[in-house]
Formats: sequence, C-alpha cells, structure tokens
Amino acid sequence: MQNNYRIDPSRIWNSLMEMGEIGATEKGGCCRLALTELDRQGRDLFVRWCREAGCEIRVDQVGNIFARRPGSDPDAAPITTGSHLDTQPTGGKFDGIYGCLAGLEVIRSLNDHNIQTRRPVEVSVWTNEEGSRFAPAMVASGVFSGKFSLDYALQQCDAQGISLGDALQAIGYAGDEVVGEHPIHRFFELHIEQGPVLEREQLDIGVVTGVLGMRWYDVTVKGTSAHAGPTPMDYRHDALYAASRVFSSLYELTASGEAGDSRCTVGELSIEKASRNVIPGEVRFSLDLRHAELDGLGALEQAAQELIARVAADTGTEIEMNCIWDSPPVAFAEDCVDAVEAAVAASGFSYTRMTSGAGHDAVNLSTVVPTSMIFIPSIGGISHNEAEYSNPGQVAKGCQILFEVMLEQAGR
Amino acid sequence: MQNNYRIDPSRIWNSLMEMGEIGATEKGGCCRLALTELDRQGRDLFVRWCREAGCEIRVDQVGNIFARRPGSDPDAAPITTGSHLDTQPTGGKFDGIYGCLAGLEVIRSLNDHNIQTRRPVEVSVWTNEEGSRFAPAMVASGVFSGKFSLDYALQQCDAQGISLGDALQAIGYAGDEVVGEHPIHRFFELHIEQGPVLEREQLDIGVVTGVLGMRWYDVTVKGTSAHAGPTPMDYRHDALYAASRVFSSLYELTASGEAGDSRCTVGELSIEKASRNVIPGEVRFSLDLRHAELDGLGALEQAAQELIARVAADTGTEIEMNCIWDSPPVAFAEDCVDAVEAAVAASGFSYTRMTSGAGHDAVNLSTVVPTSMIFIPSIGGISHNEAEYSNPGQVAKGCQILFEVMLEQAGR
Repeated sequence: MQNNYRIDPSRIWNSLMEMGEIGATEKGGCCRLALTELDRQGRDLFVRWCREAGCEIRVDQVGNIFARRPGSDPDAAPITTGSHLDTQPTGGKFDGIYGCLAGLEVIRSLNDHNIQTRRPVEVSVWTNEEGSRFAPAMVASGVFSGKFSLDYALQQCDAQGISLGDALQAIGYAGDEVVGEHPIHRFFELHIEQGPVLEREQLDIGVVTGVLGMRWYDVTVKGTSAHAGPTPMDYRHDALYAASRVFSSLYELTASGEAGDSRCTVGELSIEKASRNVIPGEVRFSLDLRHAELDGLGALEQAAQELIARVAADTGTEIEMNCIWDSPPVAFAEDCVDAVEAAVAASGFSYTRMTSGAGHDAVNLSTVVPTSMIFIPSIGGISHNEAEYSNPGQVAKGCQILFEVMLEQAGR
Repeated sequence: MQNNYRIDPSRIWNSLMEMGEIGATEKGGCCRLALTELDRQGRDLFVRWCREAGCEIRVDQVGNIFARRPGSDPDAAPITTGSHLDTQPTGGKFDGIYGCLAGLEVIRSLNDHNIQTRRPVEVSVWTNEEGSRFAPAMVASGVFSGKFSLDYALQQCDAQGISLGDALQAIGYAGDEVVGEHPIHRFFELHIEQGPVLEREQLDIGVVTGVLGMRWYDVTVKGTSAHAGPTPMDYRHDALYAASRVFSSLYELTASGEAGDSRCTVGELSIEKASRNVIPGEVRFSLDLRHAELDGLGALEQAAQELIARVAADTGTEIEMNCIWDSPPVAFAEDCVDAVEAAVAASGFSYTRMTSGAGHDAVNLSTVVPTSMIFIPSIGGISHNEAEYSNPGQVAKGCQILFEVMLEQAGR
C-alpha cells in the first residue's frame, strides 16, 4: 500500500444504497431518467452531500455539476473524477452513480484524514449520459469537449417533445458556467465493468487503456422468395442462409482472435414477409463491429465486405452493407493509465489492463484532457439491468484505488 | 404419339382465362377463397360447362363436385382426374384450376372425337384445398380418404367465425352424396409444378412419383443476453450465432446431396428483446425439413438433433427442437406413374420423373385409390402469387398427356 489512508467502505456503500432509493424499482434496480424530477432529487442529494463535505458547487449551461475541494495552490487546475447520476429505464444502482459517489467518498476521506492537496480535487456529474431520455448518449460531456454545440444539446427532445434545455430549466440545473470553460488537469472515471471479464478472471481492478472503436451497419440481403417444398436446394437464393453465413463467418473470425481485440454482434434481424414454408426472399440485419485499433477496425470492415461479396456470389443474392455510425477507437493518456496501474500494483489488488467495450463520458473528456478509467467487476457481467451488482468489497477496492490516484495526482 | 386425337389448345386456354376473371386481381392474379360468393360463381361456371359437355353432376356433403361422362360399362368405376378451384388470397389463375379445366377439356375432346370409353371419365373439384380460408388445407379430400371426419371438416371456422358447413350451405354446395362413398378406379391430378425444375431444365412434363415427406419443428435457442461492447467473444453465449450455425450446417447438408432428395428451410426467426447493441439471449425459429424417403427424413432429423447437441455444447446455449407436424413421404402407385410415363414417352415430349415438394389433394386420394400426378412448368417457379404463369403451349401439352392417360386407362 502506498499510504495508510483508507476510504470508508461502509460510507460509500450506504451512500450508493441511499441514492438508489430515488427511483428505486421493485426488482432492486433504479429508474432515474435524465432531468426528470427524480434526477433533480438525486442531484440535490449529491449536491447537499458535497456541500456538507465542504465543496463549492458549479453548474454549467448543460447541467454538468462540478463539486470542488480546494487545493493549496490557487492557480492549479483540479484533478477531476466523476461519471453520471442518470440511469436506464430499468437500470441499476451502480452504472455511473458509483463513479460520482466514489469521487465524493475520496473528498470525505481527504477530510477525515485532514489532507491538504496542492491541486483542487473535484467530482463531476455529467448530464444525460445514458441517452435513454434524450439522444445522443454522453451529450453533455460531448458539449464540454467540443464534439457538439451547446444549442444542439439543448434542442434535443425526448419522446414527449420536451427539449433538454427546457427540462434543465424545469429542474433548476441550467447553470451559468460556460460549457468547457472549466480547466481540468487530469480526469479519471471509476466505473463498473458492465462485462464479465474481471469476475470470471477473479480480478479486483481493470486498468482501462482505452475504448474499442465501433462501426454500426445496416445489412440487407436480397434473395428470391419461393416455396419451401417445390424448390430444390440447388435452385435456391435463400436470403436467410446468406445472412447466416455472413454472420457466423464474421463471428468466427473475431472469436478466433485472428482479427485482434474485436467484437461482432448481430442484435436485430428480420425476415420480410416471413412464413414457415417460404424461403426468405429478403433479410435485414444490424451489424456491430468493434476493435481496439483503428487499423484493425478497418481490416475487420474490409473482411466483412470481402465475405459479403463471396457469400453473395455463392448464394446468388445481393448484399448491401451501409455504415450508419462510426466511432473511432480511443487510447487513454499513457501517464494516466500508468498512474492507475502504479496505484493498483502498490495496493496489492489483482488487476489486468483492458479495453472498454462501451462508451463513457471519459471518452469525450479524453479528447481535451489527459484521461483514463478504472473498472471494478460486475457480477455476472450484467448491466443496464435491475440485476446489476457489485459487492461492497469490490466497491470499496475501486474507491480506494481512485483515492490513491487522486491523492498522488493532486499532490500534497 | 399414341393416337391422332388432339385436345383443343385454344379452348383449354380460353376456359382458364374466363375462369380467372372470377376474382381477378389488378396484378393479373386471382382471389377466389374457398366457399365465398366468388367460389360459388366459379363452381357454377364449371358445373354449367360440364353439363353442356353432357356430364352428370354429383356433389358430396363436403362440397366436392364430380362431373361424369358415362362409359359403356355401367358397372365400371370411373377414371377420375381433377384438382381445386379455390385460390390463395393473392393467388394465380393456374394452381388447381388448371387441373379441373384440363379434365373438362379431356371430356370435351372425347366428345369432339366421338369416343366412347368403357369406364366413365370423371372430373372432380375438391373443396378448400388451399387452406387459406379454413384450416387445414386439403380438408375435403382428407374427409374423402378417411383422414378427417365429416364433422371435423364442417366445424372448421374461418377468421370471421363462419363454419365450413355454414359456408357450404350459403353457396348451395352442401350436397347429399356421402363423402367417400364414390368408387374411383384410378385418380390422376394434373398441376403446375410450383417450382423451378421443369423450366430450368427446359422440360415439358414432370412424371410425379410421389410427394416429399415433411416435418415442421419449432426451435428455441437460449443463450445469454449481454452488452455487445463489454463482452469479449470468448465470454459469449450468443443465441443467434448458435441458430445461424444450426441452420447453415443443415442447409449445407441438404444442399450437398449427401442427405438424398431433401430440403431445409427456416422461414421464420425472431430474436427476443432484439436491440442493435445487445447479444441475443433467446432466438426462436421454424425449421421445415423434407425428404423423399421416410428413412431419409428420419436420418435428416437425427442429423439435426446431433448438430443441435454439438452447437449447444460449443456455444454454451440450450437448444430445444420440437416437432409440431409430421407428414410422411408418399409414393404414388407404380402402375399409375408408369401409365403417365408411357404416355409422355409416346408423345415425344421431354420429361423427367420427379417428386412433388408440396402437398396436393392427390396425396389424400393416393391413400384410398391408385393415384399419380402430372406436372407442367411454372414460369420462374412462381406460385401462390399473382405472377404465377404457364404459357399456352405448356398448358396444352400437359392437357394432351392427361387426355392420353385418361383414354388409355378408361379403355374403348
């Protein structure tokens, strides 16, 4: 261990559970959609706790909250952590919330141990990370990092036609700080893994080196619809067979490891005029390809295109693949990654370096501030689900690492 | 050619086109659902034409029509042909209707040439072959052959709750002949192929030796739903990948010819709670397996079960396959098949022996009467579709073969 200062495992756990009561669902999850009355209650509780811990609060024009514990150097930019308080409609108590409350616990622990840091230590709450109420996801950290304009974000509407800007006003979180005019020295986001790796490998901590790049495609296969009985196999142009071959081959390419750190998912598939005894004439499916490297993502797309050309020729079908979203891979700042790894190594906790498969506010932050992330295990790899869970020991270990990193980075 | 008697190509074609006007659709097809007012009009026209050709008409309790041209031997059972006059909702002008009107053309041609046969020559119209209005399909030939009871058939209801029995009464086709108490010496059904083989092979006639056996299954694959991003490939239990492997392997087994004369179709597939970036946790699909031989069908099912066990083990999924319908293969009476082949060979028309992939009234008849079928090409293999078509030359050739067979079987 680097020092003898400990965070308070019960306090972070109890705060998580108390926050989870706002929007609690019957099955033990949480429904606290962005900028609703429940989100206001959650934000108010967070702000009260931060004020009680001696923080000064700033809110920017898109509702991002910054709770700052001052440092000894009035000119130094803060070491900032944080995540989001909004949830999916049937979400859990941990995704995002853990990162915010662990930041608060770091500040509470600094208070407990009477530590004066040189740099300010700051906890941020990013508005509408989930994207469940307002598309796109991570919109407010996107404005902060210059990816989206403020107007764009404020004009996004929910399913009822209420704009993000009006919703912000309604709950009293339309602040006056200009978005992005908020210096941050380094940013660290602590989050649950939302995947199965740490639990299966029985590891305490994931040192996150970056985020997979992702491309989304719509694929349409046009074959020939015909009756199942009277059409011999060698006369068929079966669109579902062609789709199955494309998918299973791409799946096997990514699963083999030959394509590097990659993923292939078909989450949606529909057959036009489906009928039990009719050979499918047209099939549409979604394709989600991810890769840790930009070159690898390009090579994977190239492999998909070659495969599609081959399957189309073999089956006498026409296959079109259209890219509808392209998000390049992110590599986090090496010194931030190294700082996390050093803290974990010193702590004696078990860990692995890993890439995040999902997007986070840290991805946006990383384009303007040196950034990295810390993961803790998700039981069963489950997230965006009421069954989402990490146990008190796992929660405490992640928070302790965040404390070590923030303290070391902020200086004494 | 066996003789110099010719059917009249224009007359059979014109009758087909005239019948097609009853329920004609804008796209050139026909919508004449069983036992509707349009079906009554079609039946009335057929009966009028048969009476004009000197036939006596009988109608049984399930609405099957028999139009008989008497033979010279009052004790001899008839040589019977026929098919159905009802269509699919967006059906064509040929499926079924051709078999009925070709039978009428045989009788008209016997009249033209003043031929007195020893046995009666008879044309039948089977009620509700398509099954579009009343399930199941081929229900009335099923009652005739003892597969279904009369009550069962009469009680079947359409989507509006109207029973088959009431619909029969309403259009005046509830006859009094006891169903099945109608001796038939041999039965021949002339039909369009509804598949691509004869057209692609540029053949005039299909000598149908039997009908493929068929088993329908519901297959359920249970894997684990998880987020597409954070779940590495080797942690996945992707239900859609498992389904794709099962289907593509079975498809390839049947397409390779190793399994014999067989077919494999997945016409329906659905993903539970499908979402673009979620690994499918549960997939259901239909499976339609067909084979010309009972042993082959059993072996195909066995191969499917072994494949499913292997894929389930490989992917960590659970796969259940439930048989929901089992229709064994049918082999037509050898002497009937030989009689058709002899007639085609003598005619000089090109032909092949083939199995029917679809069911027909002849399948039910074959269980009680020596039976076989004759196919003519379907343009593009298209059927159950308004674009269904066979050209006048093809229609005439099939009708000529039916004439030869009926005459030879009825004797002089």
